[in-house]
Amino acid sequence: MRDATDVNKPPHQVVIVGGGFGGLYAAKALGRIGVQVTLVDKRNFHLFQPLLYQVATGALSPADISSPLRSVLSRNKNTQVLMGEVTDIDPDRQKVILSNGELNYDSLIVATGVKHSYFGKDAWETVAPGLKTVEDALEMRRRIFMAFEAAEKELDLEKRRAWLTFVVIGGGPTGVELAGAIAELAYHTLKNDFRNIDTSEAQVLLLEGLDRLLPPYDPELSAEAEASLTRIGVTIQTKTMVTNIEDNIVTIKQGDEIKQIAAQTVLWAAGVKASAIGKILADRAGAECDRAGRVIVEPDLSIKNNPNIFVIGDLANFAHQNGKPLPGVAPVAMQEGQYVAALIRQRLQGNILPPFYYTDRGSLAVIGQNAAVVDFGFVKFKGFFAWLIWLFVHIYFLIEFDSKLVVMIQWAWNYFTRKRGARLITGEESFLESYGKTPSKQEAKVNV
Amino acid sequence: MRDATDVNKPPHQVVIVGGGFGGLYAAKALGRIGVQVTLVDKRNFHLFQPLLYQVATGALSPADISSPLRSVLSRNKNTQVLMGEVTDIDPDRQKVILSNGELNYDSLIVATGVKHSYFGKDAWETVAPGLKTVEDALEMRRRIFMAFEAAEKELDLEKRRAWLTFVVIGGGPTGVELAGAIAELAYHTLKNDFRNIDTSEAQVLLLEGLDRLLPPYDPELSAEAEASLTRIGVTIQTKTMVTNIEDNIVTIKQGDEIKQIAAQTVLWAAGVKASAIGKILADRAGAECDRAGRVIVEPDLSIKNNPNIFVIGDLANFAHQNGKPLPGVAPVAMQEGQYVAALIRQRLQGNILPPFYYTDRGSLAVIGQNAAVVDFGFVKFKGFFAWLIWLFVHIYFLIEFDSKLVVMIQWAWNYFTRKRGARLITGEESFLESYGKTPSKQEAKVNV
Repeated sequence: MRDATDVNKPPHQVVIVGGGFGGLYAAKALGRIGVQVTLVDKRNFHLFQPLLYQVATGALSPADISSPLRSVLSRNKNTQVLMGEVTDIDPDRQKVILSNGELNYDSLIVATGVKHSYFGKDAWETVAPGLKTVEDALEMRRRIFMAFEAAEKELDLEKRRAWLTFVVIGGGPTGVELAGAIAELAYHTLKNDFRNIDTSEAQVLLLEGLDRLLPPYDPELSAEAEASLTRIGVTIQTKTMVTNIEDNIVTIKQGDEIKQIAAQTVLWAAGVKASAIGKILADRAGAECDRAGRVIVEPDLSIKNNPNIFVIGDLANFAHQNGKPLPGVAPVAMQEGQYVAALIRQRLQGNILPPFYYTDRGSLAVIGQNAAVVDFGFVKFKGFFAWLIWLFVHIYFLIEFDSKLVVMIQWAWNYFTRKRGARLITGEESFLESYGKTPSKQEAKVNV
Repeated sequence: MRDATDVNKPPHQVVIVGGGFGGLYAAKALGRIGVQVTLVDKRNFHLFQPLLYQVATGALSPADISSPLRSVLSRNKNTQVLMGEVTDIDPDRQKVILSNGELNYDSLIVATGVKHSYFGKDAWETVAPGLKTVEDALEMRRRIFMAFEAAEKELDLEKRRAWLTFVVIGGGPTGVELAGAIAELAYHTLKNDFRNIDTSEAQVLLLEGLDRLLPPYDPELSAEAEASLTRIGVTIQTKTMVTNIEDNIVTIKQGDEIKQIAAQTVLWAAGVKASAIGKILADRAGAECDRAGRVIVEPDLSIKNNPNIFVIGDLANFAHQNGKPLPGVAPVAMQEGQYVAALIRQRLQGNILPPFYYTDRGSLAVIGQNAAVVDFGFVKFKGFFAWLIWLFVHIYFLIEFDSKLVVMIQWAWNYFTRKRGARLITGEESFLESYGKTPSKQEAKVNV
């Protein structure tokens, strides 16, 4: 009632779908202006995905990198958080359809991201799990630590070697970080814990289809990452295509040569595809999608002919100046979320905003303790100093939502002791039932 | 070869089954003497069970209260840790049969503890989960936090009330701690996080069959616990028997009166029974068991007619001077483990040891932030000072194995902010599928 213009006009309704970096930054930026915000997510927490590989390798607990969405947004009294799954969108009636209700919107922000893609080989999902959710990370952790337990009991040397062989498919940041962390586990953390096996005999293989690791980065940094990983014991194979994964055998093609690797633990870090909402937007609102299913957005991040529907984050294909879409990384999603919030605010005041422009502040990847690569564009770092920058940046953003003091302490502790506290093997199914059986036999027959 | 007497004599083989407090303390005490030790556990970690309720209520992560058995025992070069499940014991051939092999023993220590007992009403397990494993705790956490999410979306007031009703069955230490923690969640932690519900309207009921809470304690402390819990909002109903749990209705009997409580979240903290190895020992080695299945042990903790098989911890029924068996608490298990280790050592040197004697250093239970009850026998405390003692004792023992510095920081943080970081709802099954359905309908039909 304070503002006379509000009396007869209900507040502008903004619905945000997805509580990742894009959705959360949009919600935060909308928290202090006169709109009504509803954030819908399938989960009740925001996940700090850049550190998920640390959960998968036993350094952190899921809660260390998760923040309850309600608690992050509890001070924004104009904002409601709803746990729910979007099944449809109706642009004509301006409604979002949930599995258990409907929401009206004046502006809609879709930020549901991507999931793994096995490039059509969906059967690989059970034999080579990917890393997108907390459950994925716990499954990886279970497989990695169970492999050492199984090797300890295995008397057949060939089978033991297969238990001690870890294949990471995909040489992007996630693959590099995973391979580095597993090498650290095998060659340092677990060194004194077994009696029958020598964990330093473990093999960690990192496979990449292109001719170098970290393809989006500068070649100089790729070379440095390869050197660092090799130094800590990772075997890198570039120009390597995976043609089959079955019965714990990974078949690879290098040029014309076909090879087979016996490995009980195969981890997938090779590709992503758009979440299903991309297709809903295409069907219902005529949005255009690229080959990976990402929605091609206008310069203001709205979709064609629907100026009040925005797509941000990994789900959006925003053609940057150089023609290539922006990469699917947290800083892009954050800036897009903030841009759309600003745009909605300006529109309500009758103003317009210039097109979205991404400010690239650099890229980071960590290789292991004390080693990382950092590319700020104007300057590049590698080694220990890059690692300190990586640490600082991650702690800074992690603390922004929900002071994760504990993570810092845990890291400091891990650093000085080289221990990893979160090594527990858990799971709904009895791991003893699955013990001794190979994941591929146990869960699915692979037909390629 | 250093000691001439060792040349022709293989080392004495000790097999320990179970890595809880009893088994781990026995293993630690055997680490520096000339025996060969094998510790077998189904899991790869020791669980600090006294704090499991804090995982169930979102204050701590599973890894915070778990220590990898291998890492705890890695310095004991005479000790091997094996992940495996015992399926049989053969006292004549002195063998422990595992699901995947056999172990020879000269001395056998069984410390496999207890699990929940539903007093024959096994169908209640799915509608009223208990709290023994990490998975149990995550399931409780999922149900507690999902209940608030569901209430937020529920428009029907009666159904909403059922989502906001939490029934804890059993007024022992676990029940008291759970009820206190849920009340804190509802009345403090979550207060500002919802828009449609007022979480302080939640009801937390604690049901106990006997006439007071914490029956093993001094009545004065029971009264104090009741007063503290009532103050923080828990409704206590003593002399209350649960006769049925079905379709989210808990039926109780108080004297001759029958009442029904509509509650979506029902948690079990009422009873335990011995693990299955008790029966194996009865069948194979002629051990005597009590009504709860616990093995009745000799004054030296061995079983009748088998001086080299020992049972310790919650699985053992050791008749104390007053005739009542020792309670199933961590200090008893620790002292028993240390005693058996000392006994084995003395026997190898040809000595004997006086019978086991338990030194009761007191009991503790926490009620909520700033409140606990402590009974040292010669002196009793309550309130804030008791809470400080509780905190100190738990941190002391938690740090003993594996410096859990992080837990201390997490607690300090929770204390000052009243936040709880580990609120994520996780699980293998899609929580969205289960959302809206009641646990009882979803998982099992209850037939009582």
